[in-house]
Amino acid sequence: GYGRFGATYVNPSVGASTTNTASRLRLQFDVSAETDSGIVFGARQRIQTEESTFGQVYAGGWGNGARFYMSTNGLTVAMGNILGVIEAAPNLYLPTASAGTGLEGNGFYSLAPNTSSNGMRFAWTAYQSGSGATSASNGVEVLYSMNGFGVHVHSGERGLGVDTTGIGINYTFSGYTAALAYEDFDNGAEILFASLGGQIGQVDAAISYAKTDNGTGGAGSEADKWSLRGGYDFGTGLTAYGFVASEDNNAGESFGLGASYDLGGGVSLEGGITQTDDVADSTIVSLGAFFSF
Amino acid sequence: GYGRFGATYVNPSVGASTTNTASRLRLQFDVSAETDSGIVFGARQRIQTEESTFGQVYAGGWGNGARFYMSTNGLTVAMGNILGVIEAAPNLYLPTASAGTGLEGNGFYSLAPNTSSNGMRFAWTAYQSGSGATSASNGVEVLYSMNGFGVHVHSGERGLGVDTTGIGINYTFSGYTAALAYEDFDNGAEILFASLGGQIGQVDAAISYAKTDNGTGGAGSEADKWSLRGGYDFGTGLTAYGFVASEDNNAGESFGLGASYDLGGGVSLEGGITQTDDVADSTIVSLGAFFSF
Amino acid sequence: GYGRFGATYVNPSVGASTTNTASRLRLQFDVSAETDSGIVFGARQRIQTEESTFGQVYAGGWGNGARFYMSTNGLTVAMGNILGVIEAAPNLYLPTASAGTGLEGNGFYSLAPNTSSNGMRFAWTAYQSGSGATSASNGVEVLYSMNGFGVHVHSGERGLGVDTTGIGINYTFSGYTAALAYEDFDNGAEILFASLGGQIGQVDAAISYAKTDNGTGGAGSEADKWSLRGGYDFGTGLTAYGFVASEDNNAGESFGLGASYDLGGGVSLEGGITQTDDVADSTIVSLGAFFSF
Repeated sequence: GYGRFGATYVNPSVGASTTNTASRLRLQFDVSAETDSGIVFGARQRIQTEESTFGQVYAGGWGNGARFYMSTNGLTVAMGNILGVIEAAPNLYLPTASAGTGLEGNGFYSLAPNTSSNGMRFAWTAYQSGSGATSASNGVEVLYSMNGFGVHVHSGERGLGVDTTGIGINYTFSGYTAALAYEDFDNGAEILFASLGGQIGQVDAAISYAKTDNGTGGAGSEADKWSLRGGYDFGTGLTAYGFVASEDNNAGESFGLGASYDLGGGVSLEGGITQTDDVADSTIVSLGAFFSF
Repeated sequence: GYGRFGATYVNPSVGASTTNTASRLRLQFDVSAETDSGIVFGARQRIQTEESTFGQVYAGGWGNGARFYMSTNGLTVAMGNILGVIEAAPNLYLPTASAGTGLEGNGFYSLAPNTSSNGMRFAWTAYQSGSGATSASNGVEVLYSMNGFGVHVHSGERGLGVDTTGIGINYTFSGYTAALAYEDFDNGAEILFASLGGQIGQVDAAISYAKTDNGTGGAGSEADKWSLRGGYDFGTGLTAYGFVASEDNNAGESFGLGASYDLGGGVSLEGGITQTDDVADSTIVSLGAFFSF
Repeated sequence: GYGRFGATYVNPSVGASTTNTASRLRLQFDVSAETDSGIVFGARQRIQTEESTFGQVYAGGWGNGARFYMSTNGLTVAMGNILGVIEAAPNLYLPTASAGTGLEGNGFYSLAPNTSSNGMRFAWTAYQSGSGATSASNGVEVLYSMNGFGVHVHSGERGLGVDTTGIGINYTFSGYTAALAYEDFDNGAEILFASLGGQIGQVDAAISYAKTDNGTGGAGSEADKWSLRGGYDFGTGLTAYGFVASEDNNAGESFGLGASYDLGGGVSLEGGITQTDDVADSTIVSLGAFFSF
């Protein structure tokens, strides 16, 4: 698992700015057994304790729903709290310790399917760290990868009572990875995601696009969002990165800039600032220490 | 601990049949310390996450009440979330990965004290895996074994406000084990259990009997149930097993048939079908993978 | 972590005496990572299950809020579920397995800032083992120690909505440690603690004093309490200890006497009796086994 702790500063478009401490402790239990013929059966469960940016909540840790899997020769069959095809698609997240900007993600505005204008932020199926029957995803998924080609399908429930199916494909060639993923919900919502990313010298960059539909069918039920991100490894333990994203429906642009400094031994300092024209927030800063164990 | 995951099919006497995924992850913490003179002091606690057959519940894991013990020279004194004399009696459960039929037990109709007609299913004191003050047993117990002879007494509360006492004895001779256990509750309920089992060549078999009384005193407050089970080890990693049980008060017969295939490394495939004339269910199938770690 | 189990006897001034089983299992997760330059980043979290003296509560274990820290060369910066300056002050607690008298503390009447007359029992900021947003402390603290001199400051919230700041200093010289700590709450409450303790041959002794104010400003809002404790190590695994404490406002005296017998391997037998003139209780006895793992 890992721990991280530090501080956040949020200056919203409306209301006063706030500075808070922020922390997370993730105890991750990865358990597995391997058959004589080399098939791995395992499960992942987390006990996570968190103090998040938006509020002073500091609840104790608890366990989430577990993901169970069987894996052999590039084929993985999993069930329970599954990953989902959008969540597992290459180049959805930033390749940072927080998977977003700064210490704790700064709202993850760099994610293309995170569209605010139609209420579809984090609306896809994902492995959930929280507790409770409604927050956990519950489904079945199959992943297969061979010769740089990967395919991923899932079927399940997201929350209680909303059925979901999805398919994702990706292909890695000459250091570049292209990905396409589509998730469909039985309440009419759907999410399409596409990305292309790779390494060019010391620069790691990706472009991604998503079209989301919240299923209500009215004006503004659909949203398009583009996101471009890049990072530069200075080779001295320092990595700098940034992104720019743009959503239609007047949600506007988001920008982020961050840096990570590796202290060795699994410890790094993480900091970043995000500026967004999105509905709720204007400026978000988070910085602190990250350590894995 | 262990993990298991697969699917269940239930075809009830009333209503439509359902097929569900089913899984459980049990993280078991067995902690202990040993004195210079060889007395072991320890405790067992579980953090268990489960999706059960009868419903789509998929709550996150949490800790149960712990069982504390002191053990030396065949004598064990324990307290907290105790085992109880019925639960710990030899040949109560099937000797399978689920302790019942199939991947997840299929309702455990093979257990003699699991009488449905008088509402006494799982009514005895047992080490409880669930959380919460009402579900945990809370008591004290003493177990002693010497030269094949074992005795077990307990005193405590089952749930809140119901006092329980119990005594169990068992004797192992020439590969056979005979057991007798009796538990008495201060609300008038009582459970008597007797069993005889052993190994005959490749066949493992046992017969058991229980008389339960729910303490209400009216007609049908008492129930008698017989259960006979057997298993055959093919010596190739495959084990097949079955049971037949019969309860009076028109609860009727239950049958079960299952198989386990050992894949090595602590992994096995488990499947089984149970047919019961019991009140609620007719046919239950569960199958999937089981792995211990 | 550790486990402990045994029994308690409480004979209150009003009402009947009660005898109960008592137990606690503490699974403690101490995780950390060390940078190349030797700075340690880490966190502590507990999953604790408890059956306490005063009632039959036996809830399952859960996680508490975590404490995060960075430590190097005698300097520690921590945040989250912090220790607090009073809680971490030398000679606040008894140096026993329970940190109080007997198996489970017997109400911790030896603690000088535990004043009953003005409702200030356990009113200081402390690392909390319980779950839930209201019970956890949430703050930031800095500890520094060099050449026997230590300083500790904290700032945070105790519970929800009550801000707290504190400063503590201590100095160790020739085997003696003197300490002074002061905590101030923004609701007007405050706690001052002073102690002096050390080793004289086989005797370990300390004297401590606290002045607490609950902030209501009326008569009896302030309380003074003195506490004197001593222990004797017989050198045969047996340690005996005792305390006497006195609080003004008619809360009166408390006495305690206990013994610990080391069985080796991290196991000990612990027993003790506490007599108090305090509001609620008269005589408290707890004894049992303690084991660390």
